[in-house]
Amino acid sequence: MKISRRSAVEPFHAMDVLADATRRRAAGHPVISMAVGQPAHPAPRAALEAARAALEDGRIGYTEALGLDALRQGIAAHYRTRHGVKIDASRIAVTTGSSAAFNLAFLTLFDPGDRVAIARPGYPAYRNILAALGIETIEIEVNAENDFTMTPESLEAAQTVFGKLSGVLLASPANPTGTVTNRAHLQALADYCSVNDIAFISDEIYHGLTFSGEETSALELTDDAVVINSFSKYYCMTGWRIGWMVLPEAVVRPIERLTQNLYISAPELSQIAALAALGANDELDLHREAYRRNRDLLATRLPELGFSIASPMDGAFYAYVDVGRFTNDSMAFARRMLAEINVAATPGHDFDPIGGHRTMRFSFAGAHEEMIEATDRIAAWLK
Amino acid sequence: MKISRRSAVEPFHAMDVLADATRRRAAGHPVISMAVGQPAHPAPRAALEAARAALEDGRIGYTEALGLDALRQGIAAHYRTRHGVKIDASRIAVTTGSSAAFNLAFLTLFDPGDRVAIARPGYPAYRNILAALGIETIEIEVNAENDFTMTPESLEAAQTVFGKLSGVLLASPANPTGTVTNRAHLQALADYCSVNDIAFISDEIYHGLTFSGEETSALELTDDAVVINSFSKYYCMTGWRIGWMVLPEAVVRPIERLTQNLYISAPELSQIAALAALGANDELDLHREAYRRNRDLLATRLPELGFSIASPMDGAFYAYVDVGRFTNDSMAFARRMLAEINVAATPGHDFDPIGGHRTMRFSFAGAHEEMIEATDRIAAWLK
Repeated sequence: MKISRRSAVEPFHAMDVLADATRRRAAGHPVISMAVGQPAHPAPRAALEAARAALEDGRIGYTEALGLDALRQGIAAHYRTRHGVKIDASRIAVTTGSSAAFNLAFLTLFDPGDRVAIARPGYPAYRNILAALGIETIEIEVNAENDFTMTPESLEAAQTVFGKLSGVLLASPANPTGTVTNRAHLQALADYCSVNDIAFISDEIYHGLTFSGEETSALELTDDAVVINSFSKYYCMTGWRIGWMVLPEAVVRPIERLTQNLYISAPELSQIAALAALGANDELDLHREAYRRNRDLLATRLPELGFSIASPMDGAFYAYVDVGRFTNDSMAFARRMLAEINVAATPGHDFDPIGGHRTMRFSFAGAHEEMIEATDRIAAWLK
Repeated sequence: MKISRRSAVEPFHAMDVLADATRRRAAGHPVISMAVGQPAHPAPRAALEAARAALEDGRIGYTEALGLDALRQGIAAHYRTRHGVKIDASRIAVTTGSSAAFNLAFLTLFDPGDRVAIARPGYPAYRNILAALGIETIEIEVNAENDFTMTPESLEAAQTVFGKLSGVLLASPANPTGTVTNRAHLQALADYCSVNDIAFISDEIYHGLTFSGEETSALELTDDAVVINSFSKYYCMTGWRIGWMVLPEAVVRPIERLTQNLYISAPELSQIAALAALGANDELDLHREAYRRNRDLLATRLPELGFSIASPMDGAFYAYVDVGRFTNDSMAFARRMLAEINVAATPGHDFDPIGGHRTMRFSFAGAHEEMIEATDRIAAWLK
């Protein structure tokens, strides 16, 4: 059977590590998983309670393609209270995780051959979905010199070298660097995109998980951005596969049509639970403080082990480290670490096809004791 | 903001009708929805119980991209007991509904410009997903003369007119016609595809819902087909968004890579519930018999009302009728029917861009009393 050229995308290596880790755990090994960005905490109590109540009735059906009206209203209210902006609920599309939101946004905004800029290092699925859809990825290197974020200057340079950009996708807080792009900087990027007729996509899935610096939504600055968010991270609902987009009005109907055909609707039980989760800030903010303790531990401990940290770690829940002192092949290093001491982390190749052979990403969304145990194991192993 | 050319797909009109019907119901109107293919029954008791138990623990996380091992094993066992074929669980991919399965199969098997044959009338999302992915849809008209199914001859004729086909997608039982393609015929199609180097995709999402005729899986005939199935229809789990594929070995890893990047994984709670649903045949077969009573009612009643039925109705749960006696614009007719008597059905345009202006589809997966009430309302309305 012929396999398409466009399916020849990179694996999402973190998911391969997850599959390996799951197999090892099933075989009885004491695996600590720091590979995927997944909170150790369950969904908020209110979300679990809402799901339980919905199961009592039992009829879990298709919803409107853009989501339950109550959830769209709830998300609109969230922007009013949290960001002081008034968004009409009709501009909100509930999606099957941010995964669906990225796919839908890319399909709706870009044709094959278009160019979209993303940060390197950055979330690998951006690059791999774009590739599957025939869109050219322009990687903008972010590093200490540019505060680990894209700038109008770096976008301008990219346009000079590669030609007109059709889109810019910025994540703040960013995976894996933890960069939080400040308000003035975000405004400058949005303005640059507006002037240059470039679609601006703001990935805000780590909102709520900022440890240092201000957390700005692109919606505070412009109505023209496509904003993507998720219940997976702050709301601890990864496996529920539920997220959302806020769209410029002209984009709503195209997104609705594609959603009807490609997804029908997001899972209803997850939508019901997500609505309840919107009110659980007290519980969820405690989790963020737990991540902060993990972050402080790793920020000290990993460099002591020889894994230096260059990136800011101001938000999200990752330590992105340089393992070049020990290996020039982080993929093999990650495999050995899992096989020999049952600590799973993600090789840097996921985030950076160029420099990733000497970096790795550790998620610190797990339990504090696991962070201690993992770093202890690594310390003993490296000796 | 620029909207892409490829996002200019047709809406899935049934979903637009669903959204209208939901709004009307919320406003207090006594809507009977026969627009979308959605069982009135909840998920099987065992599935609901399994979901409840999983909520007790509360940690609903990412699974391996191809799904929980237990569910893949359970699906493999289903093929052993139901179809007498031994499928290795490693060939099974759990997907976020059959929607994800179609998208993944199309991305993995076809490049832009490739041609894929489907039946007309047929499921609209095939055509619309193919269009969004740059694949050319070749519609093969099915009608009384060719037993409402594609034949090697019609595929040969299509290749002569349009050029080499890269894929053939056949649904049996078929939506909206209810055609059940028999074993010999299915074998002939699989053989034709094999000889002509055409990928064969067998949509079996209405399996378990055959009223008349034999129900054959393509897996009984070949290891080279891509088989797509779902927990939405027979298993009554639409809103859980959970389905599966059985893949030729060479296709597994490409599908896994794309799943990792485009979906991460199917919702875990739905996977857990689906595993329990696999054992609920006794309960589910009773539902099928209820659909059979609905079918028998509509098969008599709709022609009496002047909506003639030409298609077989041997499987699935749809009556696909000719409304040409009353209108030449089934879209407007459907809107009026919903607005004036609160009966929602789907205009034929979804299934047949050419002849659909004079057809409509009624789903009979609802309660029997609703079928009676709906046909009574239509009878009074048409007078």
